[in-house]
Amino acid sequence: MESTFVTIIEIIGTMAFAISGIRLASAKKFDWFGAYVVGLATAIGGGTLRDVLLALPVFWMQDSIYLVVTALSLLFVICFGKYLIRLQHTFFIFDTIGLALFVVVGIQKTLMTGYPFWVAIIMGTITGAFGGIIRDILINEEPLIFRKDIYAMACIVGGIFYWLSHTAGLNSVATQSISAFTVIVIRIMAVQYHWSLPALKAEEEYKSLSNSKDI
Amino acid sequence: MESTFVTIIEIIGTMAFAISGIRLASAKKFDWFGAYVVGLATAIGGGTLRDVLLALPVFWMQDSIYLVVTALSLLFVICFGKYLIRLQHTFFIFDTIGLALFVVVGIQKTLMTGYPFWVAIIMGTITGAFGGIIRDILINEEPLIFRKDIYAMACIVGGIFYWLSHTAGLNSVATQSISAFTVIVIRIMAVQYHWSLPALKAEEEYKSLSNSKDI
Amino acid sequence: MESTFVTIIEIIGTMAFAISGIRLASAKKFDWFGAYVVGLATAIGGGTLRDVLLALPVFWMQDSIYLVVTALSLLFVICFGKYLIRLQHTFFIFDTIGLALFVVVGIQKTLMTGYPFWVAIIMGTITGAFGGIIRDILINEEPLIFRKDIYAMACIVGGIFYWLSHTAGLNSVATQSISAFTVIVIRIMAVQYHWSLPALKAEEEYKSLSNSKDI
Repeated sequence: MESTFVTIIEIIGTMAFAISGIRLASAKKFDWFGAYVVGLATAIGGGTLRDVLLALPVFWMQDSIYLVVTALSLLFVICFGKYLIRLQHTFFIFDTIGLALFVVVGIQKTLMTGYPFWVAIIMGTITGAFGGIIRDILINEEPLIFRKDIYAMACIVGGIFYWLSHTAGLNSVATQSISAFTVIVIRIMAVQYHWSLPALKAEEEYKSLSNSKDI
Repeated sequence: MESTFVTIIEIIGTMAFAISGIRLASAKKFDWFGAYVVGLATAIGGGTLRDVLLALPVFWMQDSIYLVVTALSLLFVICFGKYLIRLQHTFFIFDTIGLALFVVVGIQKTLMTGYPFWVAIIMGTITGAFGGIIRDILINEEPLIFRKDIYAMACIVGGIFYWLSHTAGLNSVATQSISAFTVIVIRIMAVQYHWSLPALKAEEEYKSLSNSKDI
Repeated sequence: MESTFVTIIEIIGTMAFAISGIRLASAKKFDWFGAYVVGLATAIGGGTLRDVLLALPVFWMQDSIYLVVTALSLLFVICFGKYLIRLQHTFFIFDTIGLALFVVVGIQKTLMTGYPFWVAIIMGTITGAFGGIIRDILINEEPLIFRKDIYAMACIVGGIFYWLSHTAGLNSVATQSISAFTVIVIRIMAVQYHWSLPALKAEEEYKSLSNSKDI
């Protein structure tokens, strides 16, 4: 029962992440194959890096569901692409719920391998946020997450709440729920109140990258 | 005897892939080192990702032939670069034969690790097509394969024919030959008849990426 | 005692690499999170790829020092960014010493896994130079190292001197010192005398990438 619930959330999250990649690929006029690869990389990229760094079997190679869900997401965008704008809010909710689950799964998997909590928090953040970085590299854009931080802080704070709950002796369901809830709340509030981290001030000499990049 | 034949094809394929990377690096005015790295990444990038995902020893670290062939490819382009245009058709043949072998090798290696066929087909495609994606990331261009699909479909269909032949009970030489032949035929026909996949239609709001990328 | 010395150099090198990434991120107006990730990727990217290719536990997941040093580097740039220009020469020295250590560590780790010397030299070069390539991919620029070779040749020649010293029967301290010294001397001389590798001449037809990239 609980596992069915997790599977449903995982499918929703995968679909939301895949659709975000597919929409950006369509803005670049990529073809179906390109859109599929970008969508897939967005959905599974973070978890893949996590599994490689932890030397675990790569999750999407154990179950074809992720590839099938990405294919359905592509079909959905091909058929209903023009109505997607109206579903903006629905997607945002799906994406946020998916993010929360990805973070919790990333932390859990890491702790099971015996790594300490600070590694787990990083792996949770990588699971949630790295797919979007790969997506932006594939479409040849500067990673959005480096300018408008919406994802990463939510992942990190969610990870810290996981650790706090765990340290306070809460059971695993409570710990995971609190962590996921924190991710969701912070992400919603960040968008609602336009939270962002300060940008670094560029030194004058560094503004012209071409001559000074080799320092 | 058979293994000599495979080695020769592998060298031809590596050289064709490396030269494709080196020529694009030269268009970007990279220096010899840059051209070597881009050539090498084009030739071994797909197989490297495959081996990392399968947790196998990385193939080019077991035998220096791939680095040597890439060095010879660079030397070749430095010396005879200006005559390369006339050899366009020869390169296309080499590249296509190499692609077919890469796909078959990728599928074989995956099946030997015990993964199911759908993983093998993906790994065959990654082996054949991912080097070109890494190449385009390194030269800071949008991956060509996402717009003009020539490689990927041939890899996937070749993989499906591998599976069909295998399922039909054919022996491994026949299975591999049919798969390689399929890759070659589809790739040649795709270029000949300008086959391409449909592109996705961009939503109006997504055409200006800068403001809406964070959905 | 010796290990303390190595640790201090490693911290200096990590800081120099991280600051190089953070400064380029600030030129792109990334926020603190983006700057941290780019700085971290510059500092640990090469060693991470090395460990994944060698199937070793990833070094920065064993000790939080690298993440802490990167955080201190970010703090340093936030507080003293505008004075950094005057410290150009100091940074260059730090960066060069760090590079030398990274190369030696990369070679040592590879030899310990039983791989031959040619793999070790490549892994030394990857450890020293790949972080900068990841940095440039993350900030969406063509990797500088492919045009103005300063790092890579120093790494490779340093690796060859490691091999020569080892083959000549020198003990490990002498071998490592000679290798590190070679990296430092070549890097300083390359900058001093504007050494660079020849660039490849682009074929006319390849100058317009968009039409001919698929060869």
